Amino acid sequence: MDRYRKGMEILESINRESYRALKEELEEVSPDLSRFVAEFAYGDVYSRKGLDIKTRELITIAALTVLGAEKQLRSHVKGALNAGCTREEIIEVIIQMAVYAGFPAAINGAIAAKEAFRD
Amino acid sequence: MDRYRKGMEILESINRESYRALKEELEEVSPDLSRFVAEFAYGDVYSRKGLDIKTRELITIAALTVLGAEKQLRSHVKGALNAGCTREEIIEVIIQMAVYAGFPAAINGAIAAKEAFRD
Amino acid sequence: MDRYRKGMEILESINRESYRALKEELEEVSPDLSRFVAEFAYGDVYSRKGLDIKTRELITIAALTVLGAEKQLRSHVKGALNAGCTREEIIEVIIQMAVYAGFPAAINGAIAAKEAFRD
Amino acid sequence: MDRYRKGMEILESINRESYRALKEELEEVSPDLSRFVAEFAYGDVYSRKGLDIKTRELITIAALTVLGAEKQLRSHVKGALNAGCTREEIIEVIIQMAVYAGFPAAINGAIAAKEAFRD
Amino acid sequence: MDRYRKGMEILESINRESYRALKEELEEVSPDLSRFVAEFAYGDVYSRKGLDIKTRELITIAALTVLGAEKQLRSHVKGALNAGCTREEIIEVIIQMAVYAGFPAAINGAIAAKEAFRD
Amino acid sequence: MDRYRKGMEILESINRESYRALKEELEEVSPDLSRFVAEFAYGDVYSRKGLDIKTRELITIAALTVLGAEKQLRSHVKGALNAGCTREEIIEVIIQMAVYAGFPAAINGAIAAKEAFRD
Repeated sequence: MDRYRKGMEILESINRESYRALKEELEEVSPDLSRFVAEFAYGDVYSRKGLDIKTRELITIAALTVLGAEKQLRSHVKGALNAGCTREEIIEVIIQMAVYAGFPAAINGAIAAKEAFRD
Repeated sequence: MDRYRKGMEILESINRESYRALKEELEEVSPDLSRFVAEFAYGDVYSRKGLDIKTRELITIAALTVLGAEKQLRSHVKGALNAGCTREEIIEVIIQMAVYAGFPAAINGAIAAKEAFRD
Repeated sequence: MDRYRKGMEILESINRESYRALKEELEEVSPDLSRFVAEFAYGDVYSRKGLDIKTRELITIAALTVLGAEKQLRSHVKGALNAGCTREEIIEVIIQMAVYAGFPAAINGAIAAKEAFRD
Repeated sequence: MDRYRKGMEILESINRESYRALKEELEEVSPDLSRFVAEFAYGDVYSRKGLDIKTRELITIAALTVLGAEKQLRSHVKGALNAGCTREEIIEVIIQMAVYAGFPAAINGAIAAKEAFRD
Repeated sequence: MDRYRKGMEILESINRESYRALKEELEEVSPDLSRFVAEFAYGDVYSRKGLDIKTRELITIAALTVLGAEKQLRSHVKGALNAGCTREEIIEVIIQMAVYAGFPAAINGAIAAKEAFRD
Repeated sequence: MDRYRKGMEILESINRESYRALKEELEEVSPDLSRFVAEFAYGDVYSRKGLDIKTRELITIAALTVLGAEKQLRSHVKGALNAGCTREEIIEVIIQMAVYAGFPAAINGAIAAKEAFRD
């Protein structure tokens, strides 16, 4: 279970609570889906060289703002803060998405970030 | 025309050829649209403090991969290289998008990056 | 009103309550829109030969997971169960969407399915 | 075949060539799909009261620009011209989409419009 | 601050309350983002010639229905009414989106419009 | 490398040529991305119980039609035929997507299927 362990190490350091909440939420319908998050998303991808975790969290925030995935965005805003990103950096990423995905995506992203900052 | 000038300075340093091509392409139907790119996208947004240009190009590559905007992705892969990003960093961003937007988006993004690297 | 009647027959057998709720919800602003659902979506499309209703519900669940249309997804999870699909089959469809549309879509889909299973 | 006839009347007056090309293109794999376009999209929807055909074409251009459906956008730019829209109106719709769906969508839309204007 | 003033004039006449709510909501995380809405979206784009405000609101409703941006859709339904659009016109735009973006988008759009009509 | 081997077994039986083409295309920029396709998409997901390969290919065709991922759609249409789906079943899936993702997605999907049938 090397991939799972590698993934969990990263998750424990930056997204511990979000991942536990996810695992619990999916426990009853689809425990394999949360295992894939640990193994593939974190064990295979986030653990790669070539980008530091801070940059990985910022590009994820870009992606989730474009996708309008507000629940996941709130988790990753917290993950980004844990990884050492500042609030200013996070908001800059979200503002820039107005250029590529339009104002509704950026505005909804900024509101999701505000909610995550409050927690 | 301060915003335009500020935007053009950034464009001249990292995306000169792509912007000229865009301007020419839109000349006949919509010159205001390419002016808005210089003024708003670059003059108002890219010129902001809080994120360096390298990081701005990487989050743009994330966004364009998610959106499947391959033409703009090829431009920004070149812009990212001009801004000092490495090929490895660009590819890492694109691979990570498989997690958030699925494999077709990441694969099409990697092929667009390959085409841009060749130019 | 043959198309309407054909559509209503399918709706009555697999999605009766969801369709009544939809009809009521749109009554005041757009009764034609719910009529089009019965006539076109069910009367013209679902009633076609070439795929059984079970498979039609599974591909709809795939589509709605990709689109992030959670309200409609909850309806069709119930429709799929009524059409004879198992919970396992429904969850397998949703997990597979992680490959094509990314993890946020699949996770949000699994949570919507869980809510529908509970009803 | 009242719905089909009603749809074809509108198609004949504004999108005759595009519809013939579509019908021919789908003949071999899915003639029912082009029939549904005539019956549902035109016979049921475009033929409704409440909006004139010019406005219907402009909102379709908005939708297709947001969706990045360039092939259909080129057809509808021609349809909009046939319905009495000016080039300026069409371009204004596309520029405004930069606000809601971002610059890549608007730029790709403007290029598609340019190609349609040339035909 | 000519662009801001021009934008605010339009906002004051058709979307006053929505804009104030937005400004307040973003005050603490990203006041520049709401300023960009006034300057770019309204000052640069909505203030342009070539389309009247009524048509601009209808194409925005088309875009927001396609995007599933329900919060912004509710605002613009109110803006459209203030700009002189009728409820019927707004609903016609949303129904037509079923053709281009599918029934879930149109149904969710119609429900958002109903909520805005009630306010 | 059990996951890779399991994935390759499925790929060899239904998508051999498409996967070889993908691997070659990504060789120079991102060999890990095509490895992840074999390991995660096929080794982890397609190899699961609960749905047969035919159904897995049909829900993938639904997803790719919704996403407008035409290159991947052509591959999976061939994969679906190799897995024992009929042309009629494939086209039925694509037609049904008109209901959920709109006509442009379904039409572009049908054209992609036609191209794949010809090969």
